[in-house]
Amino acid sequence: MNTHALPAAAAPFTAAERDAVYKAIHTRRDVRDQFLTDPLPDAVVMRLLEAAHHAPSVGFMQPWNFILIRDPAQRELIWRAFAAANDEATRMFSGARQSTYRSLKLEGIRKAPLNICVTCDRERGGKVVLGRTHNANMDVYSTVCAIQNLWLASRAEGVGLGWVSIFRDADLRTLLGIPDRIEIVGYLCLGYVDDLYTRPELEVKGWNKRLPLEDLVFEGKWQD
Amino acid sequence: MNTHALPAAAAPFTAAERDAVYKAIHTRRDVRDQFLTDPLPDAVVMRLLEAAHHAPSVGFMQPWNFILIRDPAQRELIWRAFAAANDEATRMFSGARQSTYRSLKLEGIRKAPLNICVTCDRERGGKVVLGRTHNANMDVYSTVCAIQNLWLASRAEGVGLGWVSIFRDADLRTLLGIPDRIEIVGYLCLGYVDDLYTRPELEVKGWNKRLPLEDLVFEGKWQD
Repeated sequence: MNTHALPAAAAPFTAAERDAVYKAIHTRRDVRDQFLTDPLPDAVVMRLLEAAHHAPSVGFMQPWNFILIRDPAQRELIWRAFAAANDEATRMFSGARQSTYRSLKLEGIRKAPLNICVTCDRERGGKVVLGRTHNANMDVYSTVCAIQNLWLASRAEGVGLGWVSIFRDADLRTLLGIPDRIEIVGYLCLGYVDDLYTRPELEVKGWNKRLPLEDLVFEGKWQD
Repeated sequence: MNTHALPAAAAPFTAAERDAVYKAIHTRRDVRDQFLTDPLPDAVVMRLLEAAHHAPSVGFMQPWNFILIRDPAQRELIWRAFAAANDEATRMFSGARQSTYRSLKLEGIRKAPLNICVTCDRERGGKVVLGRTHNANMDVYSTVCAIQNLWLASRAEGVGLGWVSIFRDADLRTLLGIPDRIEIVGYLCLGYVDDLYTRPELEVKGWNKRLPLEDLVFEGKWQD
């Protein structure tokens, strides 16, 4: 057993450091349209990916991969796949809700200089994975934690990030050459931003309201 | 349209603030045994829950609920459910791997003064949810983002957090009175910590190695 096996003192956070973490959490936005087109420096991209790679993972499985997409021609094709899926999505709403849906910009695929497809290799840890024995989805959840790390790190770097979920899975799979055994978890658009909404865009635009937190917290048991 | 509809200048992070966000990300640990038994002040718990509640959610659906469990007798019953599932899990490993598995402490249910069960109400946004039209799991992913926010905020507060995934779903459902229509996403143990491992505990204990990030990043397309 080496000395690394011993827990070390947990470096405490100063009030200023704590506030910085909360600032990232509370001012993070799902960015669709405020992207600047300046490319992201490699050093910044690497810090963001390192942040993602330091997410928790079930059984320390690290099931994620990151496909970086910068080529405008490729992003144009991916945007077309989005647009086809979004046409289908639009038709699922009706009346005023459909008009509002149509008016929303829901992605920055062509505007954001960097897109990242985040995947989960469910076989990486073999068949039996510590912690996944009773919840088969824990590996995908680990991958989502990596995305949230990437999102918060982006905020701290002045980089906006938007998660685009309106794709037919098969379209992305074909365009990015992703094998069937690999799960596609998220498709992200990243670029520098000067401006951000001060509240979630869907709240600002009247799509939904913030729920009161106290209605969502229960003591001891589920309450109806 | 009110002034909130306009994007505001994205408050830039100072280098110190950025470093604080990375400190939370890189020193966050899955805590199983270093919990102190001191109760967490209500104000701290509320800040942690607010952080979770400010996670991104598909269609601004906010599908999460948080069940707070503090009663030692209730935590004892939940620990027994863990122990039963963990016996099953142990038998899925063989040989030296089983011995190592047996030696690992995988939860702090009875030691940590606060447990939180995080759930996802998949019906909260109605049948058709913006952004969930082509990926039915986006609501659960939103809930996982809330957990990761909670985890990083905990680190900044000096609070350790461990995610326990080794339960039979039906056991937790019964013990916490959770209806079938609600998805159980995570069961978390929280308490103050003085010490944390400097690297992931499963790495320290030889269960798995950190993968080189460069092997996980692809340009443009999936590579095999």
